[in-house]
Amino acid sequence: MSQLKKSWVDSANSAETPFPLNNLPYGVFSTADTEPRCGVAIGDMILDMQAAEEAGLIEIGDEPVFDVPFWNELMELGSDAWSALRARLGQLLGEGSTERDAVEPLLVAQADAELHMPFLVSEYTDFYAGRQHAANMGAILRGSPDLPANWLHIPIGYNGRASSVVISGTPIHRPNGQRKAPDAEMPSFGPSMRLDIELEMGAIVGKPSEFGQPITVDEADDMIFGYVLLNDWSARDIQGWEYQPLGPFQGKAFGTSISPWIVTAAALEEFRAPTPEREKELLPYLDGSKDGLYDIELQVLMQPEGGDTTSVVGETNYTRMYYSAAEQLCHHAIGGCAMNVGDLLGSGTISGPTKTEYGSLMEMSWAGREPFTLDTGETRTFIEDGDTLTLRGAAKGDGFQIGFGDCVGQILPAVSWPK
Amino acid sequence: MSQLKKSWVDSANSAETPFPLNNLPYGVFSTADTEPRCGVAIGDMILDMQAAEEAGLIEIGDEPVFDVPFWNELMELGSDAWSALRARLGQLLGEGSTERDAVEPLLVAQADAELHMPFLVSEYTDFYAGRQHAANMGAILRGSPDLPANWLHIPIGYNGRASSVVISGTPIHRPNGQRKAPDAEMPSFGPSMRLDIELEMGAIVGKPSEFGQPITVDEADDMIFGYVLLNDWSARDIQGWEYQPLGPFQGKAFGTSISPWIVTAAALEEFRAPTPEREKELLPYLDGSKDGLYDIELQVLMQPEGGDTTSVVGETNYTRMYYSAAEQLCHHAIGGCAMNVGDLLGSGTISGPTKTEYGSLMEMSWAGREPFTLDTGETRTFIEDGDTLTLRGAAKGDGFQIGFGDCVGQILPAVSWPK
Repeated sequence: MSQLKKSWVDSANSAETPFPLNNLPYGVFSTADTEPRCGVAIGDMILDMQAAEEAGLIEIGDEPVFDVPFWNELMELGSDAWSALRARLGQLLGEGSTERDAVEPLLVAQADAELHMPFLVSEYTDFYAGRQHAANMGAILRGSPDLPANWLHIPIGYNGRASSVVISGTPIHRPNGQRKAPDAEMPSFGPSMRLDIELEMGAIVGKPSEFGQPITVDEADDMIFGYVLLNDWSARDIQGWEYQPLGPFQGKAFGTSISPWIVTAAALEEFRAPTPEREKELLPYLDGSKDGLYDIELQVLMQPEGGDTTSVVGETNYTRMYYSAAEQLCHHAIGGCAMNVGDLLGSGTISGPTKTEYGSLMEMSWAGREPFTLDTGETRTFIEDGDTLTLRGAAKGDGFQIGFGDCVGQILPAVSWPK
Repeated sequence: MSQLKKSWVDSANSAETPFPLNNLPYGVFSTADTEPRCGVAIGDMILDMQAAEEAGLIEIGDEPVFDVPFWNELMELGSDAWSALRARLGQLLGEGSTERDAVEPLLVAQADAELHMPFLVSEYTDFYAGRQHAANMGAILRGSPDLPANWLHIPIGYNGRASSVVISGTPIHRPNGQRKAPDAEMPSFGPSMRLDIELEMGAIVGKPSEFGQPITVDEADDMIFGYVLLNDWSARDIQGWEYQPLGPFQGKAFGTSISPWIVTAAALEEFRAPTPEREKELLPYLDGSKDGLYDIELQVLMQPEGGDTTSVVGETNYTRMYYSAAEQLCHHAIGGCAMNVGDLLGSGTISGPTKTEYGSLMEMSWAGREPFTLDTGETRTFIEDGDTLTLRGAAKGDGFQIGFGDCVGQILPAVSWPK
């Protein structure tokens, strides 16, 4: 395990900052004076990449890369460019940099910046690859923790809706939709009454695969540019009524929040961790040579409207997944589905084995049957209007941590319908 | 019902051409001399829209619209621009046009042109909205034609994969994937052995809806720019093993073919037809004021490799759907899912009540149990390598028809894997 890499930006040298020189995550920001543009977080500052490129401090590729407010163009350049940029940022921002005088004026305080979507989402896929979550959902919904017959063989996934993916901080309206009570004869229409989160990691595809051509797990691993925290907001009642036989649709399409900073696979490299021992041997196409998970500590926090006390309601770790993002991506392309730069893969809900380690309110409240208590003394089963839900994550090194920035969303009341 | 509108392009005045002046469908073409560009089919010719715009014959909006090889930019301009362009094309190409001398040099023979994807697919959603198909699939897969409990209330859909959508003529590799025989203990990996088509219509969204904001059926109807034929290639064995509990994934991701010409909603307007009588009353949010289907006759044709005899294996009509594209689009957005220009909605498989009217081989061969015979005397259950499948469709007027161009795909052998 490496140690803290020192920067001349003082705030980046704290054991508490999520953004030391070891991290260098990629986001998009604006200020009162500037339109949205690419930036790199360092301590409590952001390096303005557009300005750095214009000043000749960053030269990646033949054309400007940072004249657009998203990171897809860097991804398009391929992994040599990814490595070159990371090395160059280390030079510019590292302790003893000879270019500090040129770089320092290009730093913007995070406190003065608004963050925006860091990349254009091409397509969004959500998986169901947490063993404990799948067992819990089976126990809750079907009365048995037995896994679906295919679960130990396939990283089960479904296509989600890219247009629903929003940056942390975007308020989410409680969705309207169809739901049917078990004892009702007919469905009814109205606001979801079982609104939930799902704590996930999101993997961002940075290299494409060709239509009609499968890929290996190792190739898939190389295609992943970086990771974000991902909250797959879920309307359990809408989902429960709609999902047979073709899977989740409107119960998952009203919002998917991601954290503001893309943490690169390179920054996470030293935190690689193995997938758990296989209960059944996987088919050989799902074999890879690398540890595919990462040791990232994760939290779910909840705060009622108007309160000032935020309660940690769940704590788990990305290593709780059964399938890695590389395995998921390999499976995604194995029939010839073309994968594109900007594709986003949700890991599936990450739950540990005990009740304090669950990644959804469905599990925490056991489908609403067992309310849980916040630090304020209030209880919850599902989300109430005005509640703010936050995901937080960090890989912890020796005297430093690699964070993502909080993934935050407040639930607003449903829009009235019909208008 | 209107009659044939005459054009000075002679080939457009035949009762047999799919592209009379009444149609004016939008595609993208290239020739030996030109890169891909937008074009409008008229008889056996194509009007080069880039050249027409450069020549000042077409002026839509303040900026050039046809300097890019896709129709999304026209869609972005909104329905006044859609109407204005259609009216202008009628002027330019109609009998007695005073501008014939300027337009005629801009016509390209379809025989000399290669066709390309007519629009950028933003996201792709596939529905399951044909009553007969749903009953057939229930009978085949679950032993009962009873519909899922939600089917008569919800236009059931799932998100598909936009990166799999290809233009007619693109060969499709038989996909590899996981499948498990009912009596096998473990799944195996290899080429799909139950490769199928689904005969569908595709509706193209031309106007966006806002994140968090539902739409009505009438608003949805106004958002639809046009239609294509759509073949939702399906690997039944892969789908059957993967689809519980989250729906189809790799069984549907190896290719979705569309016909080359977008037939506008305006061209189809006079062929509107009602959805069937409701077996259960729909929730009010699914009410609309217009007939949402169109009277479009549809065929499935099959030709073994190397043969010269094409057999019609299925004939049906778009009016066989239970839900309209506008109802599907309304439902898609009802929870606040943002819909974007270029979104593509597959209708679901269109099957009529008798065996000659089915829209998939799964139904024609009753899951492989009842082989059907081609005109050559050969039999088929599912698709064999080298087979070419074609979808054809036309709305039939008084002495004219509105066609889409064939939607063709040949199945190539699976790629060998591992490499």
